Amino acid sequence: MKIQEATLLISSSETDSNLYYATGFLAPDPFIFLQIGDEKVIIMSDLELDRAKSEAKVSTILSYSCYEEAAKSSGIENPTTADVLREFLKERGIKRVIVPSYFGIRNALLLQEKGYDIEVRQDPFFEQRVIKSKDEITYIEQALRLTECAVERAIDYIRQTEIRDGYLYLGNKKVTSEDVKKLIDLYLMENAMIAQHTIVACGEDASFPHNEGSGALRANAPVIIDVFPRSVKSRYYADITRTVVRGSASDEVKKMFNAVSAAQEVAFSMLKDNVNGRDVHEAILMHFKNCGFESGEIDGRMQGFFHGTGHGVGLEVHEPPRISKKTDILCTGHVVTVEPGLYYKGIGGVRLEDMVAVQPDGVVNLTKSPKILEI
Amino acid sequence: MKIQEATLLISSSETDSNLYYATGFLAPDPFIFLQIGDEKVIIMSDLELDRAKSEAKVSTILSYSCYEEAAKSSGIENPTTADVLREFLKERGIKRVIVPSYFGIRNALLLQEKGYDIEVRQDPFFEQRVIKSKDEITYIEQALRLTECAVERAIDYIRQTEIRDGYLYLGNKKVTSEDVKKLIDLYLMENAMIAQHTIVACGEDASFPHNEGSGALRANAPVIIDVFPRSVKSRYYADITRTVVRGSASDEVKKMFNAVSAAQEVAFSMLKDNVNGRDVHEAILMHFKNCGFESGEIDGRMQGFFHGTGHGVGLEVHEPPRISKKTDILCTGHVVTVEPGLYYKGIGGVRLEDMVAVQPDGVVNLTKSPKILEI
Repeated sequence: MKIQEATLLISSSETDSNLYYATGFLAPDPFIFLQIGDEKVIIMSDLELDRAKSEAKVSTILSYSCYEEAAKSSGIENPTTADVLREFLKERGIKRVIVPSYFGIRNALLLQEKGYDIEVRQDPFFEQRVIKSKDEITYIEQALRLTECAVERAIDYIRQTEIRDGYLYLGNKKVTSEDVKKLIDLYLMENAMIAQHTIVACGEDASFPHNEGSGALRANAPVIIDVFPRSVKSRYYADITRTVVRGSASDEVKKMFNAVSAAQEVAFSMLKDNVNGRDVHEAILMHFKNCGFESGEIDGRMQGFFHGTGHGVGLEVHEPPRISKKTDILCTGHVVTVEPGLYYKGIGGVRLEDMVAVQPDGVVNLTKSPKILEI
Repeated sequence: MKIQEATLLISSSETDSNLYYATGFLAPDPFIFLQIGDEKVIIMSDLELDRAKSEAKVSTILSYSCYEEAAKSSGIENPTTADVLREFLKERGIKRVIVPSYFGIRNALLLQEKGYDIEVRQDPFFEQRVIKSKDEITYIEQALRLTECAVERAIDYIRQTEIRDGYLYLGNKKVTSEDVKKLIDLYLMENAMIAQHTIVACGEDASFPHNEGSGALRANAPVIIDVFPRSVKSRYYADITRTVVRGSASDEVKKMFNAVSAAQEVAFSMLKDNVNGRDVHEAILMHFKNCGFESGEIDGRMQGFFHGTGHGVGLEVHEPPRISKKTDILCTGHVVTVEPGLYYKGIGGVRLEDMVAVQPDGVVNLTKSPKILEI
C-alpha cells in the first residue's frame, strides 16, 4: 500500500533540535524535512544542496529550486515554501502531514488551503529523542567532564583569592563575577564547548535563580556557579551547578547548603523508571518545609524554592521530561538534572545541580564534581 | 473604546528575537507576551517573575502561577498555556489575537477552540525591527569592529606562516583551519562576542559556501574566512568575509577575486532606498556572466555564484530583507550584507562580505577591513 502521510518539519536545524536529530545536518536557514515511512527526505536550497549531499544522514536530498521551477511552471509567479512543498507532495501522492506543536501557523494554513490534512503530534515529536542511547550518554558525559573541569578551575581561582574588607582580591584587584565567567567560558571555548549565560552570582544577585551575576565577589557569602555549555562537535549539552563560600559561611547558609544537598539525595532515592516527576518535586518541597525553609511569595518577592527540580538535557539544555509541579513520567534512558535551590532576600542563594541517567531501579549520577561549601 | 485585540507571542526570548526586541528581557524558557495598544504585558513563571520585574522593558508583569490557579479554580485540572492565557484575555475582554507566521500551531488551535480569532501578521512581525535605529547601528558597528580585529588577527597569523611542500607551517606544525578558527573564536570570546560556525575553509572545502573547513591549510590556495559573532551584551550580530591566499594566487583565482570585488561595487552602486533586492542580485549574476563565470549545475554540482547576494543583520544573523532572486524592497535604515562569491570544483572559493547601511541615495559601508588577496 502506498504511504499517503508524512511527518513534516520546516525549520532551521540550527534552532530546531528535532530537525538536527532527524538529519544530522546543521544549516542556519529553514529547510523542508519529510519522513515517509522509513524514508527521510530533505529539500535544500542551491546554497546547501551539495553540502547536504556530503553531510546529511537522510535517504533523499532534493533541490528546492527544481520544485520551485515546477511551481512556477504551474502558473505561480512567486511560489511560497508551501507551494514548493506541494509539488513534492503531489509527486508522492501524500495528502496528510504530521507536524510538531511548534509548526508555524502560516505554513499550516497555506497547506490546509491547498487541501492537505494537518495532524499535530503531541510532544515529544520524536519519542526516541528523550530516551538517550549509549552514544548520546557518552556525548553528554564528554561535555560534562569538560564542564566540571571549567567549574573546578573557577573554584580554584576563587580559592586563591585573598580576603580584604569583605571582598576577594588577587593582588590589588577585586575579583568579579565577570572575571570568573570569562575564565569558565574561555576554558570551554578552548575545548570546543560554547557556554552562554554562565552564572557566577553572589549576594543579592544569587537570590534570583537566573541572574548571571555582576561586580565584585564578596567574602563569606555564597557564590552560585551554574554552567551549561554545548559541545560544538556533538551538539549535546552538560549542566552543572555548585555553590561555594570563600571564607566562612554563616550558620544560615550552612543550613541551606545541607538542606539543598539532602534535597538532591531525596530526588536520587526516588527517581527511577516510571516515577512521576511531580511526586519527586513535591517531596523536595516537603523536605524543605520540614527543614524550616518556607517557599512562595514572602515580602512581595518569590523566595525559598520556586523553580523546577530538574529537566531533561540533550540537544537542548532544557528539554522533556521535567521534574516539576506538572505530571511527567520518568523513564529508563532519560537524562535529567536534579537542581534544588533555596533563595532568600538578604542572604542570597544556594543551588546544587547534578545530571543523572534514569535506570529501571534508580539513577546513575553522571556528575563527579565534589560539593564543598567553604573554600 | 476598549481595545479588543492584542499582539501575541508565546516563545523564549533566547531564540525568538522578536520577543527580545519587544521586551529587552532574555529568558531560556517560553513566556507569554501581549501588546494591547501601547501596553506591553508579560506573564512570567515563578522562576523568572522577579528578575523580569527588574530587567524587562514592559508595562505590566504578571504571574503565570496566579492565572494558572484561576484556571484551576474554573475546573481545569492541568491547565495548558492556552488555558492560562485565556484567563488573562477574559479579564481584559480581548477576543482576537495577532500572531507571527511562526506562531506554534498547537497553541493557535487551542486558542481557536476557546473561541478566539487568530490573525497571522505577515513578516516582519515588528515592522520597525528591520529599520535600524541609530543605537542599533552603533551596536552593529561595535560588534563589527571586534569582528574585524578577529579577522585581521587571523590573517596576520596566516601571513606569519612558512610555506613548505605546499602547506603552511609555524615551526614544525602544519597550520590548520581549526587553529585559525580557535584563534578567532577565543579572541571574540575574550571580547564578549560569541562566534559559532566560524568558517576558515581552504581548497575543496571552500567550494561549498557553508563548509566550515578542516585540516591543514594549503599555500597558494584561497582561504575563505567568514565570521559572524553575536555580542553578548547588545545581542546584535556582525558578519564579515575575507578571502586570502598565503603565497601566490593563480591567475584564475585572481580573476575570481577581482570579479567578486567588482560585484560588491555593482551592489554598492545600486543599493539605496526603494531598490528591489532582486534587481541587485540579477545585476551581479549578469556581471559574473560578463566576466566569464558561469553559475548553476556544472558536472553534477552547484558551481559559480549560487547563493543570495546579501541579507539583513541585527538581532539575527540572517533576517529580512534579503538581496536574492526574490523581490524584496530595500529601505533607508536597513543594514544588509553584500557578499557575492564564486565557487568552483578543483579551485575552491572566493567570497567577500561587507555590511552596509541603506540610505536615501546610496549606502554607507560599515565595514573597514581591507581586501587583500595575496598575503
